Amino acid sequence: MANVAVLGYGVVGSGVVEVLKENCMSISRKAGEEIKVKKILDIRDFPESPDRELITHNPDDVFEDDSISIVVETIGGVGVAQEYTKRAFLKGKHVVTSNKELVAAHGPELMKLAKECGVNYLFEASVGGGIPIIRPLNQCLAANEIVGITGILNGTTNYILTQMKREGKDFDEALKSAQQNGYAEANPAADIEGHDACRKIAILSSIAYNEFVDSKNIYTEGITNITLADMEYAEAMNSVIKLLAVSKKVGDKIFARVSPAIISKNHPVANVEDVFNAIIVKGNAIGDAMFYGKGAGKLPTASAVVADVIDIVRHIDSNGRNVWKRKDYNNVIDINESTTRFFIRVSANNNEEAVNYIKQVFGDVEFVKVANDSYKDEIAFVTAKAKEGDLVSKKDSLKASASINDVISVIRVEEE
Amino acid sequence: MANVAVLGYGVVGSGVVEVLKENCMSISRKAGEEIKVKKILDIRDFPESPDRELITHNPDDVFEDDSISIVVETIGGVGVAQEYTKRAFLKGKHVVTSNKELVAAHGPELMKLAKECGVNYLFEASVGGGIPIIRPLNQCLAANEIVGITGILNGTTNYILTQMKREGKDFDEALKSAQQNGYAEANPAADIEGHDACRKIAILSSIAYNEFVDSKNIYTEGITNITLADMEYAEAMNSVIKLLAVSKKVGDKIFARVSPAIISKNHPVANVEDVFNAIIVKGNAIGDAMFYGKGAGKLPTASAVVADVIDIVRHIDSNGRNVWKRKDYNNVIDINESTTRFFIRVSANNNEEAVNYIKQVFGDVEFVKVANDSYKDEIAFVTAKAKEGDLVSKKDSLKASASINDVISVIRVEEE
Repeated sequence: MANVAVLGYGVVGSGVVEVLKENCMSISRKAGEEIKVKKILDIRDFPESPDRELITHNPDDVFEDDSISIVVETIGGVGVAQEYTKRAFLKGKHVVTSNKELVAAHGPELMKLAKECGVNYLFEASVGGGIPIIRPLNQCLAANEIVGITGILNGTTNYILTQMKREGKDFDEALKSAQQNGYAEANPAADIEGHDACRKIAILSSIAYNEFVDSKNIYTEGITNITLADMEYAEAMNSVIKLLAVSKKVGDKIFARVSPAIISKNHPVANVEDVFNAIIVKGNAIGDAMFYGKGAGKLPTASAVVADVIDIVRHIDSNGRNVWKRKDYNNVIDINESTTRFFIRVSANNNEEAVNYIKQVFGDVEFVKVANDSYKDEIAFVTAKAKEGDLVSKKDSLKASASINDVISVIRVEEE
Repeated sequence: MANVAVLGYGVVGSGVVEVLKENCMSISRKAGEEIKVKKILDIRDFPESPDRELITHNPDDVFEDDSISIVVETIGGVGVAQEYTKRAFLKGKHVVTSNKELVAAHGPELMKLAKECGVNYLFEASVGGGIPIIRPLNQCLAANEIVGITGILNGTTNYILTQMKREGKDFDEALKSAQQNGYAEANPAADIEGHDACRKIAILSSIAYNEFVDSKNIYTEGITNITLADMEYAEAMNSVIKLLAVSKKVGDKIFARVSPAIISKNHPVANVEDVFNAIIVKGNAIGDAMFYGKGAGKLPTASAVVADVIDIVRHIDSNGRNVWKRKDYNNVIDINESTTRFFIRVSANNNEEAVNYIKQVFGDVEFVKVANDSYKDEIAFVTAKAKEGDLVSKKDSLKASASINDVISVIRVEEE
């Protein structure tokens, strides 16, 4: 029998306890032995919970109990979670977590310590909720050199964008609806500003390219500036707007970015709606493989945590005891050095002059028109592919023309 | 160093050798040691091949060589492939295969023998080509009770249906185009009659429900009767026609079926086109997870084979040494006892009478109309959900009406 302690009895932690109980029989069969939750560490009491007998407030009950071999860390954040994770390793206990913040910030050190202590540090649930993606990257696609990753990695923002597109709600209304449905937190900054997606693409990239990709170095732009008007233009381009996280191996550096992007309706992730996530992995043998499912939620995320627990009990080291090396230089390409296409909307007081000026500045562009009179004083266009830094300079120079009042929107256009 | 022998230097076999060479560095890192192809067994000579030095015609060079620990069986079929697989087990060698025919027919016995010999029998590449699906079922979704599987499991038929829908080719033209592009064999029966998809859903179901599901017991219908007219009707229903393989746990029995199905354009697999495959797994914790990618092809399939080889070298037993038990009764539900909805097209000589007769026989139905004069002597409708056997009897009784000349098409309608 394998004894597990769960640290943090919140949404995911209680889900883990529930899944281990609910699917006890089949889990035991797959693991080869029974897996039992022996202790739940939380500062709170849960007098109404069926698991109240297991709750303890004393960390020693977990860390000093040699019969507990696996610790599930579902506390979140980098403070006490990090402290307990280290303490577990030093006591010879494996740790399974859903804590993307901790893995993205301190993955290299924690993985190194785990290796030194001869234990596993597994974090399938930290990306894509229930969607199997870290194990596939480590194992199923092990025969491939990973060339690139494209994903919708944040359910909250995808829900908001879906509400805007489908229901015609503006950003604030859509955010409110996400909060009412429990898909967004009271303070939604981490989601809507793109930081959550950024941590996730950093983790996936670190695995895929086998070197630590620091989320701090990744250009990150949220969806707070996206308007219904932008969506009308996207529709006119037979496209949709998604918050895309992308990364690519480019020589010995890595390109990574989180930003809203206009993508064709034929793009494999264009139809991924609501709180669903999807991740496309491009490998040099397999081509494109896509993984799709619920990116968050109690039971889906618990399902991923428990899969890691089962692997440990079966002595499967799904990480290959990898340790991400921190480079002593910034291995992420400067966003200004990357290439992209911009969709740009400007308000004009003289459309003909503005069009001529735009052509003069950007050369060959594709103009986009929507059949809506509200936009008749606007010019919208898509640039050719160019270095982002150059496009930004050109965009900034647009206001020099007397015919152009303002730049309203700038959104990247992503090809398949 | 781990030595591998490849049996059968065809498309997949040569792909395996290529991937192991091409990605040698990263594979060695992930496996923890170098993986080398020591011998290739084939009855043919390949004087032009860069691997010609490794080719042998003598099985003893493989089976009597104790330095070879892993055998890749890419011969196909159930004859010599089965004989060599057993011989490898008895010699203490692990076997990795892409041979769905052999696994579907003799999986239980081969897995049992492998277990007795203390070796692995892995077959990720037998379903979904390069798409990771067997390992996810065994490991990533191990915390779940699997409730059901829905998939597009055959690339050839999906290509044909896509060509029909997109290019307006009829079945014969589309098949010819598939053959010209190397997506269909000269004798395409196994694909277009649904047998290939049937073997694959049998393998997936055996894993998901942990008991052998014999492909012989699964109702299987191919796509040879699907016409462009059927597709026009599907379009009028805002739907598409796909060859779907489905299975579901129903009490202590299993429902499984391969057949063309009309599915809404909102169905997650509706947009899966060309030779791509997609598999939706429904688990009781994760909900729906979808896996998508190239279902066939040299390098994608080789990628899956090599992932299994790497797992063996890393001592990861991805199968959990499961042995599928053969039930001493038919554990697959009789198709006539399953419930479904039928789309039925009839030719009529008196539309009003025919409509009345159809209502009399089937009760509440939804009539489907297409804006095409060619079909004005037809009545098309979708039945309510009912036992398939009852629907078939009712369908057969349609011809009793003098107003109905013939039943033209019967296609199942699948809900999400």
